[in-house]
Amino acid sequence: MGRTVSRLVMKFGGTSVADLERIRRVGRLVAAEVAAGHQVAVVVSAMSGKTNELVAWTDGAGRAAQGIPESDDEYDTVVASGEQVTAGLLAMTLRNMGLKARSWAGWQVPIYTDEAHGRARIDEIPPEKLLKAFDDGEVAVIAGFQGVTRDGRIATLGRGGSDTSAVAVAAAVGGACDIYTDVDGVYTTDPRIEAKAKRLAKISYEEMLEMASLGAKVLQTRSVELAMAQRVPVRVLSSFVEPGEAPGQGTIVCDEEEIMEKRIVSGVAYSRDEAKITLLGLPDHPGVSSLIFSKLADANVNVDMIVQSRARTSDSANMEFTVGKRDAQRAVEIVRAAQVEIGFEDVAVNEDVAKVSVIGVGMRSHAGVAKTMFGALAEKGVNIQVISTSEIKISVLIDAAYTELAVRALHAAYGLDQL
Amino acid sequence: MGRTVSRLVMKFGGTSVADLERIRRVGRLVAAEVAAGHQVAVVVSAMSGKTNELVAWTDGAGRAAQGIPESDDEYDTVVASGEQVTAGLLAMTLRNMGLKARSWAGWQVPIYTDEAHGRARIDEIPPEKLLKAFDDGEVAVIAGFQGVTRDGRIATLGRGGSDTSAVAVAAAVGGACDIYTDVDGVYTTDPRIEAKAKRLAKISYEEMLEMASLGAKVLQTRSVELAMAQRVPVRVLSSFVEPGEAPGQGTIVCDEEEIMEKRIVSGVAYSRDEAKITLLGLPDHPGVSSLIFSKLADANVNVDMIVQSRARTSDSANMEFTVGKRDAQRAVEIVRAAQVEIGFEDVAVNEDVAKVSVIGVGMRSHAGVAKTMFGALAEKGVNIQVISTSEIKISVLIDAAYTELAVRALHAAYGLDQL
Repeated sequence: MGRTVSRLVMKFGGTSVADLERIRRVGRLVAAEVAAGHQVAVVVSAMSGKTNELVAWTDGAGRAAQGIPESDDEYDTVVASGEQVTAGLLAMTLRNMGLKARSWAGWQVPIYTDEAHGRARIDEIPPEKLLKAFDDGEVAVIAGFQGVTRDGRIATLGRGGSDTSAVAVAAAVGGACDIYTDVDGVYTTDPRIEAKAKRLAKISYEEMLEMASLGAKVLQTRSVELAMAQRVPVRVLSSFVEPGEAPGQGTIVCDEEEIMEKRIVSGVAYSRDEAKITLLGLPDHPGVSSLIFSKLADANVNVDMIVQSRARTSDSANMEFTVGKRDAQRAVEIVRAAQVEIGFEDVAVNEDVAKVSVIGVGMRSHAGVAKTMFGALAEKGVNIQVISTSEIKISVLIDAAYTELAVRALHAAYGLDQL
Repeated sequence: MGRTVSRLVMKFGGTSVADLERIRRVGRLVAAEVAAGHQVAVVVSAMSGKTNELVAWTDGAGRAAQGIPESDDEYDTVVASGEQVTAGLLAMTLRNMGLKARSWAGWQVPIYTDEAHGRARIDEIPPEKLLKAFDDGEVAVIAGFQGVTRDGRIATLGRGGSDTSAVAVAAAVGGACDIYTDVDGVYTTDPRIEAKAKRLAKISYEEMLEMASLGAKVLQTRSVELAMAQRVPVRVLSSFVEPGEAPGQGTIVCDEEEIMEKRIVSGVAYSRDEAKITLLGLPDHPGVSSLIFSKLADANVNVDMIVQSRARTSDSANMEFTVGKRDAQRAVEIVRAAQVEIGFEDVAVNEDVAKVSVIGVGMRSHAGVAKTMFGALAEKGVNIQVISTSEIKISVLIDAAYTELAVRALHAAYGLDQL
């Protein structure tokens, strides 16, 4: 609406292409954009469930059990086939609707990646072939989630990588990017928790990035980073529209400057994917923190929130930090193995925690955001275990049982149901 | 046995790689050949059933319904993914067994084909990358059934094309080709019909070619043609061996000169895939046959056996010919549409026919083969409807109900149960 881009990349995730009927629905959405005069590239995921089937086979073939890292190039060969299938099927469907179309596997574009198989990063997308297809009036249907290394091996971008593929293609051809998904935009919070959640017409890259990394699963974090770095206009909208019906306006992700009416807080996000680890009775001298976190970093364990506190009754300290739930046991083993070296007395894990965050670029210029947050939580009797902040968000770690209560309280406290 | 080739291409069909357990069994067979000192390439089909699933999707996406020929490039994109999956899984399996291995999609080798999507022919296989892999002690696991056109589109070779892939790779790298399947070799006839059928230790290319085209489904016809043209030593053997057990000797397909003890007849083949079409009351003048068969050829209907006979009671003639069963109705429509032009009185179709053939290079130098055949059939009361012969085979069309009876009678008449 109001956008006058001539090149458009449309991205459809696994649920949007789950079967042939849905692929036809995608075809109609593509045809409408072509009819509107756009040069269109489409980036597709594997049909819903297919990637899981392929991953299970690679596990069965010994990938997970043996943990042989170089097997990841073969993992990529197997798993990338899912997107190739969808791309071919959609291209056929578009042709049957009378459009010119062809599919492009990652190696055909080519979408060059580094060699980090299974979690590769896109290096470069030479746009020439796609621009040629546009000039020929042809819709380019591109297999998402995959690229090719400089030496010609298939590489995948990691789970959710199709969003990143779409944004990267849009950057390469100089177009906008519409991400079609099973929701009709980005909401002030998860509508499954707060029925009064409102769709945002616009959100800034920075806010979207925080939302994505703090648990809102609408867009993959890396795709937002890339969109922000390359200034790609992104829109999130729903593919689940009936024949003849237009998709809604969705949510536009754009530069902060393009958002006229600034809000102090744009959304409330939550995540139950973290676990809290507590080290008790640490010696209170320099270098202890460094020792702990370098050991975790060496093992590729990402640490999120950290807080250190002096125990009241002694000159020792306690340290609390959070890691992803799936890394929790490994993190405990790592610090236990270094117990003597670090010198702590005991370690405890708590997986019954949730991280709740409020996000908004308006925080930069407004005092009192934290006060409102802590006040709203205190009023509902929610105890805050750890706090972390950035320029545009405040996160608190709380007992997981209070997640919904906290989300609703914060949503109301910032007036998000009044948008 | 006795073969001292250093390069070996092993081909495994869909039932041999149907699940992860069977892929591991294939892995053990490959490991044994590596241990025996061979440089090994493996050509694999899609897991049993996968190709059918993919083909059904392409039908659903409108390929068959719309019959848009250019959609076949997308058909190939979709369907070729099945072999890519198997190749990746087998490469992972081999690595987990401690071997060096990597998968090769058709475009990675590259296996160059022409642009006849869905039934492409292999143009050229530059062997350099595979030879480099051999030098590195690496098993090359190649996706069968597929190649790439010169302009970088995936092309498939048609059903059963993996046999052809394997023979072509063997020709390119100068190796022998072992085709692993669900039977342990080529038999004098179908053991499901004649329990006394004997495995042949050796069979000539020419005989194998006739066997394949006359209904023995062990090897794909095109792969035998290619093996014969390129003089690739081929062996057919079973992948269904228990762990620790060696596959049997199988059947070696080779030059006639390498077969010491010549047999007059090597095998009895049969096919129920044909239908007989009879044109009654044809004008008996030149050009009629030409008119009929050029119309059928224009519609890509392959005609196999042909016989023309003068009707006793008039100066008109009857013509009988056979086509593939799936082409029968179309063939009838084609001749009906030209009934006035051709000038026949009536047309009849008989689908209850079978073609039974005896094959043997010894026929060239031995008289009496036909006499034995017709005698054996007459003795069992089997009526012969059409006869066709080549230098090394005699085929007869009979009532389908007599198929087993005829096969057993001929198998005995040529002493094939005494081998």
